[in-house]
Amino acid sequence: MKFEIKDRDAAGRICKFTTKHGTVTTPNLMPVINPNKMLITPREMKKLFGTEMVITNSYIIYKDDKLREKALNEGAHKLIDFDGPIMTDSGTFQSYVYGDIDIDPIEIVQFQRDIGSDVGTILDVFGTPDQTKTKAEQGMKETLKRAKQSVRVKGEMALACTVQGSVYPELRELCAKKLSSIDGDFFPIGGVVPLMENQRYGDLVRSILYSKRGLNPSKPVHLFGAGHPLIFPLAVALGCDFFDSSAYAKYANDRRMIFPWGTEKLDDLIELPCHCPICSKHTASELKKMDKKEAVLQLAKHNLYVSFAEIKKIKSAIASGSLWELVERRVSANPYLLEAMQELQKEEHKVWLEQSESTSKNKALFYTGNNTIHRPIVYRCHHRLLDRYKPLFDNTVVFPEGKKPYSKYYAKQIDEIKSKADVNILINSYLGPVPIELDEMYPFAQSVFPKKIDEETKTEVAKMFDKFTKKENVIFWEDKETIDELPASKKKIDKDIARISAVSNMQFGKGASKALFDGEINIIKSKKTGKIRNIHSNENHVLSMRAGDGLFTLKIDGAKRLHKSFKYPKLRVTIDKDAVPFVKEGKSVFAKFVIDCDSELRPFDECLIVDKKDYLLAVGRTLLNRDEMLSFEYGMAVKTREHIK
Amino acid sequence: MKFEIKDRDAAGRICKFTTKHGTVTTPNLMPVINPNKMLITPREMKKLFGTEMVITNSYIIYKDDKLREKALNEGAHKLIDFDGPIMTDSGTFQSYVYGDIDIDPIEIVQFQRDIGSDVGTILDVFGTPDQTKTKAEQGMKETLKRAKQSVRVKGEMALACTVQGSVYPELRELCAKKLSSIDGDFFPIGGVVPLMENQRYGDLVRSILYSKRGLNPSKPVHLFGAGHPLIFPLAVALGCDFFDSSAYAKYANDRRMIFPWGTEKLDDLIELPCHCPICSKHTASELKKMDKKEAVLQLAKHNLYVSFAEIKKIKSAIASGSLWELVERRVSANPYLLEAMQELQKEEHKVWLEQSESTSKNKALFYTGNNTIHRPIVYRCHHRLLDRYKPLFDNTVVFPEGKKPYSKYYAKQIDEIKSKADVNILINSYLGPVPIELDEMYPFAQSVFPKKIDEETKTEVAKMFDKFTKKENVIFWEDKETIDELPASKKKIDKDIARISAVSNMQFGKGASKALFDGEINIIKSKKTGKIRNIHSNENHVLSMRAGDGLFTLKIDGAKRLHKSFKYPKLRVTIDKDAVPFVKEGKSVFAKFVIDCDSELRPFDECLIVDKKDYLLAVGRTLLNRDEMLSFEYGMAVKTREHIK
Repeated sequence: MKFEIKDRDAAGRICKFTTKHGTVTTPNLMPVINPNKMLITPREMKKLFGTEMVITNSYIIYKDDKLREKALNEGAHKLIDFDGPIMTDSGTFQSYVYGDIDIDPIEIVQFQRDIGSDVGTILDVFGTPDQTKTKAEQGMKETLKRAKQSVRVKGEMALACTVQGSVYPELRELCAKKLSSIDGDFFPIGGVVPLMENQRYGDLVRSILYSKRGLNPSKPVHLFGAGHPLIFPLAVALGCDFFDSSAYAKYANDRRMIFPWGTEKLDDLIELPCHCPICSKHTASELKKMDKKEAVLQLAKHNLYVSFAEIKKIKSAIASGSLWELVERRVSANPYLLEAMQELQKEEHKVWLEQSESTSKNKALFYTGNNTIHRPIVYRCHHRLLDRYKPLFDNTVVFPEGKKPYSKYYAKQIDEIKSKADVNILINSYLGPVPIELDEMYPFAQSVFPKKIDEETKTEVAKMFDKFTKKENVIFWEDKETIDELPASKKKIDKDIARISAVSNMQFGKGASKALFDGEINIIKSKKTGKIRNIHSNENHVLSMRAGDGLFTLKIDGAKRLHKSFKYPKLRVTIDKDAVPFVKEGKSVFAKFVIDCDSELRPFDECLIVDKKDYLLAVGRTLLNRDEMLSFEYGMAVKTREHIK
Repeated sequence: MKFEIKDRDAAGRICKFTTKHGTVTTPNLMPVINPNKMLITPREMKKLFGTEMVITNSYIIYKDDKLREKALNEGAHKLIDFDGPIMTDSGTFQSYVYGDIDIDPIEIVQFQRDIGSDVGTILDVFGTPDQTKTKAEQGMKETLKRAKQSVRVKGEMALACTVQGSVYPELRELCAKKLSSIDGDFFPIGGVVPLMENQRYGDLVRSILYSKRGLNPSKPVHLFGAGHPLIFPLAVALGCDFFDSSAYAKYANDRRMIFPWGTEKLDDLIELPCHCPICSKHTASELKKMDKKEAVLQLAKHNLYVSFAEIKKIKSAIASGSLWELVERRVSANPYLLEAMQELQKEEHKVWLEQSESTSKNKALFYTGNNTIHRPIVYRCHHRLLDRYKPLFDNTVVFPEGKKPYSKYYAKQIDEIKSKADVNILINSYLGPVPIELDEMYPFAQSVFPKKIDEETKTEVAKMFDKFTKKENVIFWEDKETIDELPASKKKIDKDIARISAVSNMQFGKGASKALFDGEINIIKSKKTGKIRNIHSNENHVLSMRAGDGLFTLKIDGAKRLHKSFKYPKLRVTIDKDAVPFVKEGKSVFAKFVIDCDSELRPFDECLIVDKKDYLLAVGRTLLNRDEMLSFEYGMAVKTREHIK
């Protein structure tokens, strides 16, 4: 089994997952195949919807003499006629629905192994949301015991070890941690179906996040039983990789149609609000009048078209860095899903989510409403502003939100102020306070807001503004007279120097500007745009500024300076000696060779690649955060850009 | 030409529009057919997308010798091989794009008539957003002059008279009024393309709303040049019936794909975030590698699948009463569209929109975020609470938002309070203050909110709370001690009586309860639910309460009482003598027979059907508001329920 990250956004990721039956891409939806009654065959699913992997139930196969024999003789793949990876479930959900089931927990794992399942599942104990903590803990412990026993018999099969713990965060985290410490390969988050059925999305989110905290980040995570696309974008943004859908068939049997915004009864619809091949070929009244059995088949296909399309939308959003926007758009369809967003506003979740958040994205940040200000990227910006930015003067003149970049929009006023007095210029923006030196940096410049914003954003922004400006004397710009009483200018601070200092501190940490710039500083600008492009310090090319996101690319001479000034492990990715010769040739760093990493590094950050003795080898751009680098066995951790020759 | 309303929601409507080439349903999207170069033929469009009506350009036909001859000899329908209704444009947009065009404004109308166009368009003067008011007024006056001249030559063709007036509301309204007073049949709102191109959605909304104010509500309205589905839900909610799309081809030629949330470049996509037949058959990389010309065709089909599906979604939302929800979900995809919502918050727009808002809907009100509190239905509730509700006591005990119905959720506390003191019970709900007597009435009970709401809603709700409670002494419930200091109970007010009084006043107006209830009041409840079902007053059955929306159905005996107490024209729909015999037999009232109507009546309101002498004939439920009843020549105005025998 192989699992590696290819792209990412929020805590979501596009990964490649490989078993001996092939490679699939995550986020991935596995339709549930009932071996007794296939509404649509896996083969047809592959053709129609691009289905790459399916899930079937080993308990049902085991309990049926004919199926069991066939599966044991010919294998699960022949049984359901599918040549891609197959996951099997163990009967846990049956035990939840029907009460105790008559199967040995180890026997069912062995059976899954014997029929050639690619991913077999332990017989975990389903924790229900209404359990007491004691009861939930008992179930969790039994699950752990079974997982440990099951690992021993898994053979070549990847083993799915389900995280339980009901709605108790500490149990979820503990269960996840313990399961990660044994040799599990795949981690379903279990016991969540009743939460979804009762639209308890706040509890769902908490269960996912506390499970994720405890799990090995290099392993695939499966939100077990989640088959409605309504939840896919949010679940992916929180780090879920796999979904399974029995909903497509269950809902179809009930004449219900799945949509990204919810479910509708066919018989309530006057029009089919959809453009899938089924809804493009038929009208609502045609479907209603259709032979019952045929209608079920058509509805099941519709349900799968819609569900798989949502997965494609999510991948597309990850690639363009707009997954949070997709999530925010989707949650507005359901007031209970909005409760999930409210849960995410808690500090504990923000801290965790911020760690996976990329430093920069391909697309501007789009405001969608009052949820936007609570995004992890905004949380990071606010924290870094408080921690890493130092105002230059005692007085601050504040301008309101305006066109971007602000330094251009307010150029006239700023020049006038600067010619008279030494003041900080601050924009009271819709993302929070933006010092003028940072106005070209992602996401301050790369964000789109309407002219007016909602009251909640105003409140949040005002809180941050107060925190940020508490030491300085703040003056709100009205007109020329605003600055009449300020003391005359004494210092002469070059605005380009101020900009490169502020941006480098924000990006690399406090002290970066001091480390990077000394002696004669030569700033080279684009002739076309007038923007800063390259910075030389004492004739060393230390940094380049990227036009797209206003952040720095670190040059090897800059890296040397930061390496010298910043103590280990700051900005470092430390690699094993086996990888050193390759990096010295400019090759990139694979995750399995990373032995240490600065915990402050985020995906797409500039980093120093060093050996065990902290000897600087190269400079590169991270693709993973620390936890991921230390866990992943496959895939790239750092893209090396320049190495020491 | 025939145009009648079949269903409605917000200021949007599902209508039937009939010409001699057939009947089409609105909201309707007309793909633009270039007679010189048909990427997809109208015939194929009908088959693939269910296209019912198309638009082509008479100016292009006129200017091309071959096309002109063919069109004059065989007709426009043969020319483009389409047997459904065809609209033709006149060359106005060409004049906007290429400057002055060489055509006589009357000649082009005659030409459209002669080639058998179902809807021909005047050669209006395109008003641009950057025009001075003087210039815009000149253009508007010239447009009006041409419209008047064109009407004389239209023959059997329906004539589309385009509303101009640039971004000046008073010019838009004036132009619309004047056009409505001449014999125009179809009203495009023109000059909006540059607003959409520059994402000036606030200006767009204002232009639409001021045009709509001036227009005859019984005529179809076409948002000229709007072909991107992003704007469809909002435009329909404001009363637009027709759209035309050249975008499908223009964007396809540019390798861009249309989505409900915006536009994406094919070459930027790693996955096709869509499930239309084209995107279900092909992957992104297949489309990218395809022969350029073939790719354009596939993208054009995708664009039309998506655009027509959005129309189906809108119709579906109208039918379920959730159009505002669809609008709010859609606008969250684009910060500039959110500016349109901010424009809608202005009092002037709320007042206008409230008139079309139905009294009750099929589906509960779903909160989507901070836009929900600004919906017209909330505006109405707040106004009616201030105007029609009178508290019973001097002291008010307030409970926070809770489960619905509130009277059940807080039953224990309320009983306790009521046994001790005479107080009003008020819920400080997420929709605003809800007196306990109204807690089962739409939308107070039929609304879904998350546990917490955004700050903007809180602010709006708090403002309303203060307005509503300014006369009473307000006590916020904490525990039993809350009511310790209240004076002991003196009056005994039956809570069922209080409920039916409050609901009837809210629904029918101040004084309704006094008119309806006298003597012995007998309230019959459902044995199953305990809810009020029927009310008899002095042995007359005056009202039934509907379980679904908690509103009253007016019985004939109730109608008699209201008719006696309420002066003309309150609650009345007055019909022509020709219709009297039919209504006396229990037949419904068609719009063309309505000669007067209470301006306070809203769609789906209970009403009194009277003759010219104000003799009560029957009681029914309105489908239209006053302006619509007095304008429409086709379709039903009131569904008669019970008539006087």
